[in-house]
Amino acid sequence: MSEKSAWPEIARKKREALLNEIPEKWRLTSGIPPAQEQKDITGLLIEQYLSPTEVEITNSDAAFIVEKTTAGAWKAREVLEAFCHRAALAHQMLPCLHEIFFTDALAEADALDTHYRTHGQPLGPLHGLPISLKDQLNIRNVDTTTGILSLIGNRTTNHASSSPSPSPSPSSPLSHNPTTQSPTSESTLVTLLRSLGAIPYVKTATPTASFASDTSSNLFPSPPFPPALQNPHNRLTSAGGSSGGEAALLALRGSPLGFGSDIGGSIRGPAALCGLVGLKPSQGRLPFLGIERLGDGQAAGVGFVVGPLGRAVRDVGLVVREVLGREPWRWDPDVVEMGWRGEVFEGVRRRAERGERDERLCFGVLRDDGVVRPQPPVRRAMEMVVKAVEGLGHRVVEWQPPDHRKAISLQFSCWLHDGAEEFHHLLSQTGEPAPPTLAGTFGNSPTTPSSVQDVQAHNRATRAYRADYLTYWRSTASLTGTGRPVDAIIAPTSPYASPLLGKMKYVGYTAAYNLLDYSVCVIPVTKAEKDVDRYEDGFEALGEQDRVCFEEYDAEAIDGAPVGLQIIGGRLQEEKVLALAEVLEKAVKDVGQQGRPVGKL
Amino acid sequence: MSEKSAWPEIARKKREALLNEIPEKWRLTSGIPPAQEQKDITGLLIEQYLSPTEVEITNSDAAFIVEKTTAGAWKAREVLEAFCHRAALAHQMLPCLHEIFFTDALAEADALDTHYRTHGQPLGPLHGLPISLKDQLNIRNVDTTTGILSLIGNRTTNHASSSPSPSPSPSSPLSHNPTTQSPTSESTLVTLLRSLGAIPYVKTATPTASFASDTSSNLFPSPPFPPALQNPHNRLTSAGGSSGGEAALLALRGSPLGFGSDIGGSIRGPAALCGLVGLKPSQGRLPFLGIERLGDGQAAGVGFVVGPLGRAVRDVGLVVREVLGREPWRWDPDVVEMGWRGEVFEGVRRRAERGERDERLCFGVLRDDGVVRPQPPVRRAMEMVVKAVEGLGHRVVEWQPPDHRKAISLQFSCWLHDGAEEFHHLLSQTGEPAPPTLAGTFGNSPTTPSSVQDVQAHNRATRAYRADYLTYWRSTASLTGTGRPVDAIIAPTSPYASPLLGKMKYVGYTAAYNLLDYSVCVIPVTKAEKDVDRYEDGFEALGEQDRVCFEEYDAEAIDGAPVGLQIIGGRLQEEKVLALAEVLEKAVKDVGQQGRPVGKL
Repeated sequence: MSEKSAWPEIARKKREALLNEIPEKWRLTSGIPPAQEQKDITGLLIEQYLSPTEVEITNSDAAFIVEKTTAGAWKAREVLEAFCHRAALAHQMLPCLHEIFFTDALAEADALDTHYRTHGQPLGPLHGLPISLKDQLNIRNVDTTTGILSLIGNRTTNHASSSPSPSPSPSSPLSHNPTTQSPTSESTLVTLLRSLGAIPYVKTATPTASFASDTSSNLFPSPPFPPALQNPHNRLTSAGGSSGGEAALLALRGSPLGFGSDIGGSIRGPAALCGLVGLKPSQGRLPFLGIERLGDGQAAGVGFVVGPLGRAVRDVGLVVREVLGREPWRWDPDVVEMGWRGEVFEGVRRRAERGERDERLCFGVLRDDGVVRPQPPVRRAMEMVVKAVEGLGHRVVEWQPPDHRKAISLQFSCWLHDGAEEFHHLLSQTGEPAPPTLAGTFGNSPTTPSSVQDVQAHNRATRAYRADYLTYWRSTASLTGTGRPVDAIIAPTSPYASPLLGKMKYVGYTAAYNLLDYSVCVIPVTKAEKDVDRYEDGFEALGEQDRVCFEEYDAEAIDGAPVGLQIIGGRLQEEKVLALAEVLEKAVKDVGQQGRPVGKL
Repeated sequence: MSEKSAWPEIARKKREALLNEIPEKWRLTSGIPPAQEQKDITGLLIEQYLSPTEVEITNSDAAFIVEKTTAGAWKAREVLEAFCHRAALAHQMLPCLHEIFFTDALAEADALDTHYRTHGQPLGPLHGLPISLKDQLNIRNVDTTTGILSLIGNRTTNHASSSPSPSPSPSSPLSHNPTTQSPTSESTLVTLLRSLGAIPYVKTATPTASFASDTSSNLFPSPPFPPALQNPHNRLTSAGGSSGGEAALLALRGSPLGFGSDIGGSIRGPAALCGLVGLKPSQGRLPFLGIERLGDGQAAGVGFVVGPLGRAVRDVGLVVREVLGREPWRWDPDVVEMGWRGEVFEGVRRRAERGERDERLCFGVLRDDGVVRPQPPVRRAMEMVVKAVEGLGHRVVEWQPPDHRKAISLQFSCWLHDGAEEFHHLLSQTGEPAPPTLAGTFGNSPTTPSSVQDVQAHNRATRAYRADYLTYWRSTASLTGTGRPVDAIIAPTSPYASPLLGKMKYVGYTAAYNLLDYSVCVIPVTKAEKDVDRYEDGFEALGEQDRVCFEEYDAEAIDGAPVGLQIIGGRLQEEKVLALAEVLEKAVKDVGQQGRPVGKL
């Protein structure tokens, strides 16, 4: 691992090994049309290679699939095989996978089918549901590289003492986690998902160290690959990051449901850009024991969490509810004993569905964060949601919280407390360069680490900002007309509909809510329309970042890129944001592209 | 503040100012008998100075007091005046107070009485309940020194710009907290207690920096004071620390209920040694925003919490329930949205009261932690609780968890992450020396701080230990006979009944559960009996600490010192440990000193 020019060959071998996991019969023998010719590859282009049954299965949402599998109508193997096939195709169109383990997964599917035959009932409520996982979760006998080449082989080889492959250095920073040393151990979340009947079968691509708002790493270096993982809905634009592989795979329906992670927007960005639903829970709600990350051991305040991405709010709610039903606090000491609060979910959903008289809700609307204002498609999406909310009988007020610049600056600085020493150490093992998207964050070499006193001051400032935000939130009770403070916040996920490849720069809209540790659900709202989404004349930039965002807007190129927005609750408000997201997901579909709600108006 | 020999005069003036807050009529004109002559001063010695009504009021528990005040039977003023009087006497017998603000408090009592007359109902469920607070909580216009002389005047003087008294240096480490800078702001907990009708009237003594297992500081330096705050039940022994002022005041019934803090046993130690009930909640349950502490901004993992001390489990449960009813998570961003779970409390209490058939519980019994074995009175107390538990129909199994030495070592080392720089800086401002009890922890000068990487490694090790402990706990399901893992743990609070003054050395039994962040309630069990509590022959020490504990045991001297034990639940299990504590508090009273349960046997 220590050879300084080793990385291109290591990457090539890994790519080759990955392709070798795809059965011959599923290999693409010819390329797909160039992006300029066919931007959207989510539909027939991929479905042409599938059987009608495979199309039916893979176009089904997760909740529908488990209805079928738990009733015995669909077999675990046929469901999994369909998704393996489609995932294999997806990866050959866009390199969205880091690990493929179809063989092990199919053996598990067979075991589940046997279980069903023997017991006459499913193993659990997610019986036979294929599930994709970002390459930060540990799976037995499968590497966890987080996009870092020196970590290749860290779990697949270190249990075979006779293997000639290099073992991970015991001093590797990411080897601190005991699970890394044990190829048979898994992340707690994975163990619980298996106990529910779900079947992991692929791990999805991340940027180097799983730490960027695009998805690019030296495993798929550019060239010959595009500068970032493409968005399946518009390949001129980005799938986002760092859970970009997850989002691209889901958008191509190569998976019904997956898990990503989020420390600045890494679930929410890709979900919004790829037209998906994504939940960033608060810390301590879902288990994250045994998950690999840069900076592991940083204070809980950094807001790193794992959460689901899916095609529908119902699917995301399903997996959260079922994982909580397994009482994860009995395994992961950082998880709060707080089961799924069904009465909260049902109560909020009922009120949200018809906001009549004293039942109505009030939403805070964050139109911009004072740093980078949203591009026209995002502004239109915000208007659509406001209209949908009002159409349901609810109110909105402007959300004018404590300066987000403070939150964003605190959130960004905590990533650098170790002077990026771990990051550069890991890259130096194979000589791989920092991709341009990460060099901006981590520089080209380590800098002076923070002192313990600096970190403590940072933590105090974080707490003070959070307390100020709560004070502001409470103060809105005088504005809402409901007698209560604002029930939830509606905000952009990003200033962009999906940005052009390599132009994904600003993550302040999401990062602020990591600092606050709030529960957030992203829902798809609309798609960019080149003939509608234009800036008015007379744009005056708030600053450099705002100016760049304005100047890089290319209505023609991004046409068709999805736009998703954030529904934000307070801390540990997963039930509330999921209930609101479920109602708004439907309500915005009823709002025409012209911004007029159907029905109520 | 920067004069290096200033401290004795600063301390003298503060002591004088404190005495001046006591009305002339309540001053003691003669001393009390020496400790050797009268060890226990909790009864008639102090009551001789009170009126019969004052004795009746101050000998009442908090729950009884609020029954009277909320029904209008007792006035807030008469209740408060009685406790002010008794607290003033207590302080003159043992220096257990840092701040006295009777005048402000009595004005509040009058306002509450006016409220009751005007509205015909109490302000809240704690209407007119006097409440004492450790000198780490911020009260408007009252100093918060945490026992550090350079912080004297930090809140009483900095709002009066014309005051000649020194203002706090803006660079004072403990001045980071915005509340320190604002003499009118208060700790969130105090604000919520006031909203419930409680009245703060004194702040209680802590050791220097609120950081020792004894209570001694240079505000009451030795000589002329004893080397540590004396235990009112046996003045040859220690009241413990760091909430020792709180415990001594409560034991003398100068307060019905108070709040302390705990980072290694600072609530539980003093509670056990002084015959009280003390709750160490898990982090994130009770608000601690705006509380002063050394090392503020350390990761949440250090296990620092605020919690109540009282004379009965019912009182402690009352204040926890009512504070949670005020939804503290709307003020303090670190508090989890988890109201009082009445159904958990009632359910556990009902099962605990009669452990019949499938309703019975199983307790894990930690007889010793492998480092320092308990002295004979503590061993006898453990046997009494085991007998009480079995008498109620429950089971016990031996608790053999992952090595506590690991937990203790992690917990102790995190206190030194900044190389004790803040501690020595604060002391150097007035030239005050580190008391011997703290020099052992913090040395005589700062050392090299930990690096950010060290702290991260520490946090990872903490998480791994916590996960191992959970794994062990789950594994006990095969031993309990209940089909469930152990319901709660019974453990010594300390190897000592109250130790001789200056001999309080080992806090491993409590510190391990800060590292684990478990909910713990301490209950009083028995008192040391010189004729019963003897070591058997043939003691062989586990190590140096164990040997010292054995050699320093003085059955004669500690005779009459209380012994309290820990009832330990998992994380955020306040309802469960309070319910069990309430049942066991009564059950151990029914167990004779001979160890035979009354009734069942």
